[in-house]
Amino acid sequence: MRIIVDGMGGDNAPQAIVEGVVQASAKLPAGYEICLVGREDCLRRELAKYDYDARIITISHAEEVIAMEDAPVKAVRTKKKSSLVSGIQMVKSGEGDIFISAGNSGALMAGGLFILGRIQGIDRPAIASVYPVLGGSPQLLVDAGANSECKPGNLLEFAMMGSIYAEKVWGRKEPSIGLVNLGVEENKGSTLTKAAYEMLARSGLNFTGNVEARELPDGACDVIVCDGFTGNVILKLTEGFALHILGLLKARFTEGTKAKIGALLLKDKLRSLKGEFDYSEYGGAPILGVKGAIVKMHGSSNANAVKNTVLKSIPYVEEQVVDKIQNSVLDIEEIVNSEREE
Amino acid sequence: MRIIVDGMGGDNAPQAIVEGVVQASAKLPAGYEICLVGREDCLRRELAKYDYDARIITISHAEEVIAMEDAPVKAVRTKKKSSLVSGIQMVKSGEGDIFISAGNSGALMAGGLFILGRIQGIDRPAIASVYPVLGGSPQLLVDAGANSECKPGNLLEFAMMGSIYAEKVWGRKEPSIGLVNLGVEENKGSTLTKAAYEMLARSGLNFTGNVEARELPDGACDVIVCDGFTGNVILKLTEGFALHILGLLKARFTEGTKAKIGALLLKDKLRSLKGEFDYSEYGGAPILGVKGAIVKMHGSSNANAVKNTVLKSIPYVEEQVVDKIQNSVLDIEEIVNSEREE
Repeated sequence: MRIIVDGMGGDNAPQAIVEGVVQASAKLPAGYEICLVGREDCLRRELAKYDYDARIITISHAEEVIAMEDAPVKAVRTKKKSSLVSGIQMVKSGEGDIFISAGNSGALMAGGLFILGRIQGIDRPAIASVYPVLGGSPQLLVDAGANSECKPGNLLEFAMMGSIYAEKVWGRKEPSIGLVNLGVEENKGSTLTKAAYEMLARSGLNFTGNVEARELPDGACDVIVCDGFTGNVILKLTEGFALHILGLLKARFTEGTKAKIGALLLKDKLRSLKGEFDYSEYGGAPILGVKGAIVKMHGSSNANAVKNTVLKSIPYVEEQVVDKIQNSVLDIEEIVNSEREE
Repeated sequence: MRIIVDGMGGDNAPQAIVEGVVQASAKLPAGYEICLVGREDCLRRELAKYDYDARIITISHAEEVIAMEDAPVKAVRTKKKSSLVSGIQMVKSGEGDIFISAGNSGALMAGGLFILGRIQGIDRPAIASVYPVLGGSPQLLVDAGANSECKPGNLLEFAMMGSIYAEKVWGRKEPSIGLVNLGVEENKGSTLTKAAYEMLARSGLNFTGNVEARELPDGACDVIVCDGFTGNVILKLTEGFALHILGLLKARFTEGTKAKIGALLLKDKLRSLKGEFDYSEYGGAPILGVKGAIVKMHGSSNANAVKNTVLKSIPYVEEQVVDKIQNSVLDIEEIVNSEREE
């Protein structure tokens, strides 16, 4: 198996990417390789800092770099020699089995759509993100922001793809699916969520009904389904609130001697809590619905996040998640089409 | 001025309602009255527990009660003698200046629409809720859940009404308005938010641009504008996360003797933090856009929340917010109509 990693993508590239790849390479099963795509001189210089096995880590040269602020579609169309486009091309040609990047998310999605194409029968590929549960197991949130406007059938697609991913990659048995809605009752919600509810109920998936946003931090279900606008709000609000409250605790707990001593005694607890806010332990966010495996890492990923994403991505390929999604399209097609006919 | 309070609405009615009204009555300026609407015997029995001024607190009998689980529209149409319908009727007839209730939110909105009617030129009345900022000043969030589907012009209406309320009731000068969106750049977002952005930019309001959900916990702006589905998700997710993290801190800080001593030393800090999660200090949530003042309290309001809501509602009437919204409709009408013509 050959894992392609974008050496140039993300805020901390290439340093953190190369360091993380070296760390991951030491833990890969026999027969696995990692190929770094990007400017060869630059990547070689970084690699030279470490003691690594040159049979496991190779480099594929790509001259251009797609920047975080580049317009996604234009960047993919014009920067054909970028590490991002080259990496996805390698998955398309079979030179690689999966592409992992901390680069421009929009370009990653556009590249997946243009180069690999959609799985037949999937209308809207989506980004599936880790939604952390403090003190519990994470949830998979689909869509995390790729599709700000959705039809009911799209939400059913997200549920089906998320269910397969949660089962095959995270090892959840019959993953429970929750639909983000205004209330838990069946008849609640917008036109979109009411229609999606009906479809999910007939889908044969383990649909457990509506979930209110209030329940998400406690770990309401395995797969959280919503449109990409809502998903983006959920992820970013949680991240913002977590950072805000950590900052506030720190400020309050260092006001006055008594508080400082108290905080010192609680240091281990506070540190472990902070660690739980770290999404990177769980790996990256797959782009589900395209004909090949692409995983997006957070733009600010450090070496540890890169290492985790590489290692946690193995079952995505080994379990043939892309093929399984393709095979499951038929199971939901009739329900999705019933909407189109209406 | 005469404040009408629903004696029967909410999880803790009538006890907490009556207790809160008695507390508020002691702090009202001269010439103010409170009228409790509901079952007279029941309210009289509760009032008898306290020492109060019978010239300030009166009772208006209403036989029926709209329950939290009643279907809103049907309840308002069939329970004409309910405390909720009677209370809104009193605002309509001029017997009261404002109606405050912790009862069924949907019924409160339906009652406002059917009995008072919309302000001419306002397409969609909305609920404006307090969005708390830990360690800072709260923000006003419109719409908090009344309209799960919106047109761009509706978001402009929410912004205009929220701006007037934040200025007149909260005393904010030229309230800053933020539009919840996927990114801060002007061209980001869904069809709805892109069109709303354009309208807000031309509105003459103090529109400061898009806000990402990540910025909300830090206090991004005075008035947060979004559709009701998004607003509901933002409020409920924040509430759920706050409760989750408080529970987690408590559990972790009581594991082991060292942590327990640390937590004891930080007791005051933790308690003050918990207090900041308490929305009720800021008063209730007005239903903006109907022809009369209605304020919704949280269903689980305790006596202190009732007292605060009553006292904080005074400027809503004194500053003639309903009339000011009516007068400002003209300012945005042309922009809203430009959408309708398209």
